[in-house]
Amino acid sequence: MTGTVPTRATIEAAHALVKPYIHHTPVFTSQFLNELSGAELYFKCENLQKIGAFKARGGLNAVLSLSAEQLANGVITHSSGNHAQAIAFSAQKVGAKCYIVMPDNSPKVKIAAVEGYGATITFCKNTPEDRQGTVDEIVARTGATFIHPFNNYEVITGQATAAKELIEDLTVTLDAIIAPVGGGGLLSGTALSAKYFSPHTQVYAGEPEGAADAVLSFRSDKIEKAPYVNTIADGLLTYLGDKTFPIIKAEVTDIFTVSDEEIIQAMRYLWERMKIVVEPSGAVSTAAVLKNKAVFEGKKVGIIISGGNVDLGRLPF
Amino acid sequence: MTGTVPTRATIEAAHALVKPYIHHTPVFTSQFLNELSGAELYFKCENLQKIGAFKARGGLNAVLSLSAEQLANGVITHSSGNHAQAIAFSAQKVGAKCYIVMPDNSPKVKIAAVEGYGATITFCKNTPEDRQGTVDEIVARTGATFIHPFNNYEVITGQATAAKELIEDLTVTLDAIIAPVGGGGLLSGTALSAKYFSPHTQVYAGEPEGAADAVLSFRSDKIEKAPYVNTIADGLLTYLGDKTFPIIKAEVTDIFTVSDEEIIQAMRYLWERMKIVVEPSGAVSTAAVLKNKAVFEGKKVGIIISGGNVDLGRLPF
Repeated sequence: MTGTVPTRATIEAAHALVKPYIHHTPVFTSQFLNELSGAELYFKCENLQKIGAFKARGGLNAVLSLSAEQLANGVITHSSGNHAQAIAFSAQKVGAKCYIVMPDNSPKVKIAAVEGYGATITFCKNTPEDRQGTVDEIVARTGATFIHPFNNYEVITGQATAAKELIEDLTVTLDAIIAPVGGGGLLSGTALSAKYFSPHTQVYAGEPEGAADAVLSFRSDKIEKAPYVNTIADGLLTYLGDKTFPIIKAEVTDIFTVSDEEIIQAMRYLWERMKIVVEPSGAVSTAAVLKNKAVFEGKKVGIIISGGNVDLGRLPF
Repeated sequence: MTGTVPTRATIEAAHALVKPYIHHTPVFTSQFLNELSGAELYFKCENLQKIGAFKARGGLNAVLSLSAEQLANGVITHSSGNHAQAIAFSAQKVGAKCYIVMPDNSPKVKIAAVEGYGATITFCKNTPEDRQGTVDEIVARTGATFIHPFNNYEVITGQATAAKELIEDLTVTLDAIIAPVGGGGLLSGTALSAKYFSPHTQVYAGEPEGAADAVLSFRSDKIEKAPYVNTIADGLLTYLGDKTFPIIKAEVTDIFTVSDEEIIQAMRYLWERMKIVVEPSGAVSTAAVLKNKAVFEGKKVGIIISGGNVDLGRLPF
């Protein structure tokens, strides 16, 4: 582990490290959504990534960066879903034991996927305090290494590789890249990749109105909690960390909030027009671009579709 | 129009003709579905094609093959959905007038799409006789050229380009390719592309139990109607034509039927695991491979995912 803010060199090293295990996901375009937004949109389809989300990148980079001694005691994390799958998947790749602490209201499809990677699941209440307490107890008992879902520089460095690929795959220079923001792992990684690999590209974020902590923190210049938490975008419920926030504050141009109705409409466009399965959190960036025509009109915009893990039995359509 | 059975040369010419207007669709793989089937599966994602289905290929080839005199009077077809969109889309590309006869129970999303391409829609009862009668009336009045959904050599030649791309994109040689069968346009085109471009590849078809005309015709050696028609796979309700049947009889190895339950299960796997939106008809090939493990186990199998146009308000999950 470097334990330092990602640099151009550490992002490049992370990309080389995770490449053999991940999909180089495609970049899709849609004439319909170009016309609707008035912009030229490039969708980086991380819903088509291993485990169905970009989190495979950060999880792999964190696990592959551990020493043999650390791996011998296993790895542990808490997560409402995609990060759990990412760590379970990554641990399986290196043959390490894996403990996952999950809220007891996690989507069935995500629980099943974690079990499929051979991890040991411990359920907890869906509060940050109860999650961390359960993790601490297991760490004390097993000596497993805790891998935080976002407030971890190796995780951030891994997430940065998605935007790096997007930038490198395009022949055009993007005016903007937009990513969803929850704890800020993807957003801070995206911002650093733009800074290093496409310095003229501005970075934006989309955030649910019902978990609007990042936009508050961004404006007040200190980490804030959301005024209330109630959104369909269940991957974005958490607040920023002391490692993600300074990067976001320094490198991100603006954060836009979107309502659940706008998220579901964007999700529907992505399903109906692009024929891809996108989870609500994964549609937040698209919703933000469609809502802020004045900002994005006429521009070349990279949109990170973060994940596609939905429970088909509980769709909002 | 050549009006002759597709040859290697006419398929190559068709591919060059339609290429500027279509997507070169990606080939996806899934570790999960490989393990489930015991085979090595290559999914040709024609759900990601323009208009959301392979039918863009045949429609374009047929329309682009017409003379200026023919185009001046417009084009016409009847279709329960995807072929309608294909012809409307193709006519719009060449600036020709387009008449579409649709059954009055067609999915809303398909009606909206046809309207979006600027076609004039006339609704009819959902019987082959009423469809054809309505078409004949409009042809008599306008002089429009009728483009049959499948029993047309230019359409078949266009559909053949999907399997041609799949074969050319792979570095492995496929043991088998499987396509769904309704009227047989895609299946006969697929069979001819395999014959010309990958002669060691055997061609199979999947067909809904509730529209099992092709398997009957294949066994009895004459065109038969289905004993009953009742399936969720609404793109495959029709029976073979005198142009598609002889090609299928000569070139296809076998046809497998699948139940609606098996179709929905396969569809669910494609949505959940591959994160792509596939319509019931588009999941029939996958269902047939999963059902016939003895036939496909250990083999390299190309699976044509034919389309992704579903009404999200009426999902079977």
